[in-house]
Amino acid sequence: MTEQVLPSWNQGPARQAILDHVRAATTPGAAFVEPADRIATFDNDGTLWVEQPLPPQFDFVFRAWGKEVKADPSLAERQPYKALVERDQGFFEGVATQEPEVVATLLEAFARSWAGTPPAEFDAQVREWTRTVRDPRFGVPYVELVYRPMLELFDLLRAHGFRVFVCSGGGRDFMRVFAEDTWGIPKENVIGTAAAYTWTGGRIVRSPEFLGGLDLGPGKPEHIFAHTGRLPAFAGGNADVDIEMLRSAAFALLVRHDDERREYAYTKGAEASLAAAEELGWTVLSMKSDWATLF
Amino acid sequence: MTEQVLPSWNQGPARQAILDHVRAATTPGAAFVEPADRIATFDNDGTLWVEQPLPPQFDFVFRAWGKEVKADPSLAERQPYKALVERDQGFFEGVATQEPEVVATLLEAFARSWAGTPPAEFDAQVREWTRTVRDPRFGVPYVELVYRPMLELFDLLRAHGFRVFVCSGGGRDFMRVFAEDTWGIPKENVIGTAAAYTWTGGRIVRSPEFLGGLDLGPGKPEHIFAHTGRLPAFAGGNADVDIEMLRSAAFALLVRHDDERREYAYTKGAEASLAAAEELGWTVLSMKSDWATLF
Repeated sequence: MTEQVLPSWNQGPARQAILDHVRAATTPGAAFVEPADRIATFDNDGTLWVEQPLPPQFDFVFRAWGKEVKADPSLAERQPYKALVERDQGFFEGVATQEPEVVATLLEAFARSWAGTPPAEFDAQVREWTRTVRDPRFGVPYVELVYRPMLELFDLLRAHGFRVFVCSGGGRDFMRVFAEDTWGIPKENVIGTAAAYTWTGGRIVRSPEFLGGLDLGPGKPEHIFAHTGRLPAFAGGNADVDIEMLRSAAFALLVRHDDERREYAYTKGAEASLAAAEELGWTVLSMKSDWATLF
Repeated sequence: MTEQVLPSWNQGPARQAILDHVRAATTPGAAFVEPADRIATFDNDGTLWVEQPLPPQFDFVFRAWGKEVKADPSLAERQPYKALVERDQGFFEGVATQEPEVVATLLEAFARSWAGTPPAEFDAQVREWTRTVRDPRFGVPYVELVYRPMLELFDLLRAHGFRVFVCSGGGRDFMRVFAEDTWGIPKENVIGTAAAYTWTGGRIVRSPEFLGGLDLGPGKPEHIFAHTGRLPAFAGGNADVDIEMLRSAAFALLVRHDDERREYAYTKGAEASLAAAEELGWTVLSMKSDWATLF
């Protein structure tokens, strides 16, 4: 494996560690991974695309809730609509720390907005958003803010027999709308927080309930095992909510956001994962030093 | 597509309908199916392997419950252990008709037997069973009672870009143990009734709860949509509990068990699906006339 692979990565310890691991996993020896066991899982927000100032799905959701508040101003008196109207970002950051009250309030609001929606209608809403809405700082649709080096890593892994999955705390059905075009990952390889569906009157309709809880923290290996029957041979993440998934993997890659010029520099929400990486010998990639090209 | 494909199938309307549909689905025209949408789903019991006198998983389960009753004879006074001791097959047939009390009693007993069991231990139990236990009539391990014509159909579908999934009311994790060796289907393409799992103390442990309900009847398209983000382009089943899945599919294939000599002849539990096949124009395959070889 030479410079032809991972072309957007700079020569350096992160790229080398990945190449070494992939070679070891696919060559007879102590670190060999049976082809059947080659499951690779990646977080989305902050691992595959920009998650600052808030993960892009919030933009999609806020637009829907904004319309609901406009139609019924009394909603503005209660959460999460109140936080939206007051631009209280701290409230929404409570998702990452899995504050039960915040989570319950959000899931209830998601149900209010989309329960009963047929998948085709939800898909159309997401497609319209990916097509028309632009990230304010970068001026491009959010789906263009996917890190090219990660897509190259998917190619490398697939070329070595890994099946690549995305496993995100974000909405499974939201991600599935653009997974194939944007990541080259089939819908069935997208794992995430998800509503239940019912077969009613000869069609699939979204239920108010969410099945299997949030796909964050311990929920990540739980969702991965339920979906694939395995724990990952390779996992990539960037935040404290990825720790359990990274611990469950044979090889763990942690994205460090340290590139203020090209993206953002922050460790908030990643303090524990950076400490775990040091303690457990995970490979940490510096966006600034390890990636020649971001998008 | 000539006689080289589906070699264990006799020339006839079922084989022809399958070949015609696969050609139409992969050739530009009105019935073309986009490669991304080529999801094929198959029931297991009675569709991929012999389900008489009871689906083989019951044999596995009964052996475990038999040991439990031996260790604690008081269990024999309550269900489902009572039905096991009294050889009351009718009680267990209540699963297929989804009698709520029977289902609840069984799920509770499954939890009693396997909650807290790490996956590796459960796998070892199933592997031991597949290796050592033989079907009384045929004298071979149950995994050798898989219909060869169906495995050839999987090959045909995969050769035309379909991703093949098994979607069964049986235990997802039970099937995953032998899915790869027996069907050539990766674990992640097995959908079924399933316990939840928790990530506890750095490992995955089976919970007492079952997530998403039984994968029978309406549960089949619900589980398929949740797992894959699509409804099937091709589906195969054999019983009334497959009706909703078959209705949700672009092409539906129904197995008719009419071969008393080589297998079994019965319509019990399939009356409504046979009627639906006639009404909706599904392809019905006769085991006796359409399959040259069974196993």
